[in-house]
Amino acid sequence: MSDLKLPGIDDVRIAESLVAPHLHRTPLLSSRTLSERTGLDVWLKCECLQKTGSFKPRGALNRIATLSQGQRDAGVITVSAGNNAQGVAFAAQTAGVHAVLVMPETAVASKVEATRAYGAEVVLHGDIHAAFKKLKELRQDRSLTLLHPFDDPMLIAGHGTLGLEIDVQMPEVEAIVCGVGGGGLCAGLGIVCGGLGKGTRLFAVEPEGAPSMTAAIAAGKPMQLEHVESIADGLAAPFVGHLNLEAAQRFVEQVALVSDEEIRRALGLVLDRAKLVIEPSAAAPVAALLENRLPLEPGSRVVVVLSGGNLNFDKLHTLISRSMSRAIP
Amino acid sequence: MSDLKLPGIDDVRIAESLVAPHLHRTPLLSSRTLSERTGLDVWLKCECLQKTGSFKPRGALNRIATLSQGQRDAGVITVSAGNNAQGVAFAAQTAGVHAVLVMPETAVASKVEATRAYGAEVVLHGDIHAAFKKLKELRQDRSLTLLHPFDDPMLIAGHGTLGLEIDVQMPEVEAIVCGVGGGGLCAGLGIVCGGLGKGTRLFAVEPEGAPSMTAAIAAGKPMQLEHVESIADGLAAPFVGHLNLEAAQRFVEQVALVSDEEIRRALGLVLDRAKLVIEPSAAAPVAALLENRLPLEPGSRVVVVLSGGNLNFDKLHTLISRSMSRAIP
Repeated sequence: MSDLKLPGIDDVRIAESLVAPHLHRTPLLSSRTLSERTGLDVWLKCECLQKTGSFKPRGALNRIATLSQGQRDAGVITVSAGNNAQGVAFAAQTAGVHAVLVMPETAVASKVEATRAYGAEVVLHGDIHAAFKKLKELRQDRSLTLLHPFDDPMLIAGHGTLGLEIDVQMPEVEAIVCGVGGGGLCAGLGIVCGGLGKGTRLFAVEPEGAPSMTAAIAAGKPMQLEHVESIADGLAAPFVGHLNLEAAQRFVEQVALVSDEEIRRALGLVLDRAKLVIEPSAAAPVAALLENRLPLEPGSRVVVVLSGGNLNFDKLHTLISRSMSRAIP
Repeated sequence: MSDLKLPGIDDVRIAESLVAPHLHRTPLLSSRTLSERTGLDVWLKCECLQKTGSFKPRGALNRIATLSQGQRDAGVITVSAGNNAQGVAFAAQTAGVHAVLVMPETAVASKVEATRAYGAEVVLHGDIHAAFKKLKELRQDRSLTLLHPFDDPMLIAGHGTLGLEIDVQMPEVEAIVCGVGGGGLCAGLGIVCGGLGKGTRLFAVEPEGAPSMTAAIAAGKPMQLEHVESIADGLAAPFVGHLNLEAAQRFVEQVALVSDEEIRRALGLVLDRAKLVIEPSAAAPVAALLENRLPLEPGSRVVVVLSGGNLNFDKLHTLISRSMSRAIP
């Protein structure tokens, strides 16, 4: 993918005209509790309330809009066990394009079902490595177009629409904090923060157990982590994209790390006080604020991206059990 | 209170100018899951995301705005174990008026704490009956103004601002469904539905274990229920207000009943699919739609009022435990 170029803010503006008609403008809510606890002016961008339960369809809708007619006719394929599956399935259905989702057999039944409900063809196959092999076979046999889950210029531009939306809802935002996995959302937000030229600061947060962006920045290139493990499965990518590393180097002021326990506490607080069901990946940037990991001046107006809310009910139950006595002040 | 008159839509418009600057315009979100399950076009008015976690400050802010200077100087008093306590405390703090909240000693610690955090003086005293006695004493001793929790024209007009907000967000709404306890919110919405003259239908929903409005309509006057019991504590008023009965008679098309088990299932579905933490009282109108209790034509555009999200963490935990295997399709 090294011949690909980062998109610019004009690409994000074009993406917005393609993407916005199909999605919610999600609420931006102030949080008194988080503001009091952090000494900041904290606002929550609720992509957990986005269609499909996460920001993912933003990028997928824009990527699919750039397909040629031949590619549209043949269909698209990707691998995912999580939010990207639903995002791609929804986007493909919206565009009238057939989507094949290869999912590992360990994928959660409710996510498989939700993906099928958006009309996608789900192929359950082995573990995640076997699923990748299956994807290669199917892609060749059926001439399907691969949709990369995070390192793709048009996907990044689509995710960037989230940044334009924040700018409309709160033009005077001083800092944006987002989680980073493969880095697609972070790259999109970076392009907007940079392109608008208003000096909005961008911070990225990743789990201690999956520090793919921290490793990439240290090495100056994407590094394959040997082992990733985090409750925040959406941020547990074993490596970041080339484009996304470039965007982070240019636009991200700092990458902070948070522990699973800190993520759990943050999730409990959002659930209890902000009344929002979020997934652990969305709780990571909240945790970074609560743990004071970012160099923000008191009173700074900060938007935290709550990236998704697709938490299994039984997982939610376990999380609440574990944090009950701790999260409640 | 029989000498009091129901407010009109002009009172609600005045209330809006007083109330809106201090509150969120809460999101109105479409729900694909609820629409598919009911065959309706279902939208959720998210007062669970309102300041203090419920719609209650709407009425309290407007009521307090009508106090004389002498009344403001002396302060206000009410009894509550729930959302009204936080609503009144927040409204009083906003208006710079001292508020005394008499709460039973059984009140949940987190609610007591939240009420105190809004600067109110909390008096913990006995059970709910003893608390009412204590209120009378304190009111006389200190010349405090009593804020009635539901049967008050200015409170009703304040709650009605929720209806004006729905009209702005979705002018073409065909029906509104809300829960009914003492009936204040329902009365406010009725005045708006009637006053706008657009034929918007209004339905009320109450728990089988606390059918105070059903009993009042049948008897033609508010009836004191001997025993109320429901998981939806916010709707478990033992009687409705006189004004609120009058409003229901004039503006509510039908009152539906739902069981605690139906409420639990609806709550689980909203939590799992709409990603919102709501309290059982807010789940009651959702349950009525899911159980097909209302005479709505397929495809009707319906707004459901999610009245609040103040659910104790441990209660949430219990609810999830009980509904886990049932709510998930």
